[in-house]
Amino acid sequence: MTTTGIVIFDGAEDLDIVGPWEVLGVSAALRSAAHGGQEVDRAVLVADSLGPVRCAQGLRVLPDATFDSHPVLDDVLVPGGIGTRTEVGNPRLIDWLRRTAPGCRWVTSVCTGVLLLHEAGPARGRSVATHWSFEDQLEARGDVTVVRDRRWVVDGNLVTSQGVSAGIDMALWLVGERYGVEHSRAVRRQMQYDPEPPYQD
Amino acid sequence: MTTTGIVIFDGAEDLDIVGPWEVLGVSAALRSAAHGGQEVDRAVLVADSLGPVRCAQGLRVLPDATFDSHPVLDDVLVPGGIGTRTEVGNPRLIDWLRRTAPGCRWVTSVCTGVLLLHEAGPARGRSVATHWSFEDQLEARGDVTVVRDRRWVVDGNLVTSQGVSAGIDMALWLVGERYGVEHSRAVRRQMQYDPEPPYQD
Repeated sequence: MTTTGIVIFDGAEDLDIVGPWEVLGVSAALRSAAHGGQEVDRAVLVADSLGPVRCAQGLRVLPDATFDSHPVLDDVLVPGGIGTRTEVGNPRLIDWLRRTAPGCRWVTSVCTGVLLLHEAGPARGRSVATHWSFEDQLEARGDVTVVRDRRWVVDGNLVTSQGVSAGIDMALWLVGERYGVEHSRAVRRQMQYDPEPPYQD
Repeated sequence: MTTTGIVIFDGAEDLDIVGPWEVLGVSAALRSAAHGGQEVDRAVLVADSLGPVRCAQGLRVLPDATFDSHPVLDDVLVPGGIGTRTEVGNPRLIDWLRRTAPGCRWVTSVCTGVLLLHEAGPARGRSVATHWSFEDQLEARGDVTVVRDRRWVVDGNLVTSQGVSAGIDMALWLVGERYGVEHSRAVRRQMQYDPEPPYQD
């Protein structure tokens, strides 16, 4: 049983959350089917309270657990979004990350979520990825190396991705790292993730 | 002002909803910024009631409006997911689609959402795309041509996409169709949608 906690907060970017959530959900469903329907993995949305969280693009989501009451987490994922500008100064969230990350196998972020991991500590002194528009600002905070040409960056147990949609690629990499390349490919096939962005330059 | 209604229901696939939602949200934000902060476009989640909807992978989302009370919709989007198997027999949803679709500029679906558009009428006699695993079943329903090698299919004002993640590509095409290629490219850049699926075969 692997439990991934995805931290959510007002102004978190909608797809930063739901891209990896979808990957983890499909991964769990495929693994459950291979284990006679037993629940083997799960992802939970963790927030300060159980009230609705309003994401950056307006999606209103209900958390599954709170900072004070959640299952033991194997992995943690921090989304980005405009809300990180506020949350970086929220001691409740930052302290929770500081306490929780050291017990996790994988500590991960999407987009500007790495700002919160930098504030809390896990991204200090590490190589990371972030949204293209935030690279300079993040580097200016110091004690971090921003990698600008990689969709996601693995540094020890820290995995950080570029902006928004990059969380999907990172999460597919993670389920492959954990459960094998063929499993990740099966998840990708179920999501029919053979991207064809229109209007390519 | 363009209003897109995304129909949601228990068992709708999480990313089928939030992929296009993210595209539409970023598109609206960029266009709003270009119009002095004025709201120019919006997307609303429309459901049978205002209670939480539980998506296929467990995401719990609050609807913005109900079938009985929602703003006039310019476009409608129908997600897929396991829940379509139930909803295809739900007269409330099917009748709503039957009434609403004829007034829309674009009638769209992601993944198996096309099943509901077939039941309600708009996909009858049309060329469509769907999830790879559902192509045979959909074709067996008759009065529809399933295109198996296109990420999304445009037939008149009906636009249908392949499985789950394909809704992102379709939505980017739609905002480009409506607001221009450069606008769509700007949305894609903001989402940093330069996919690099791992473990390519």
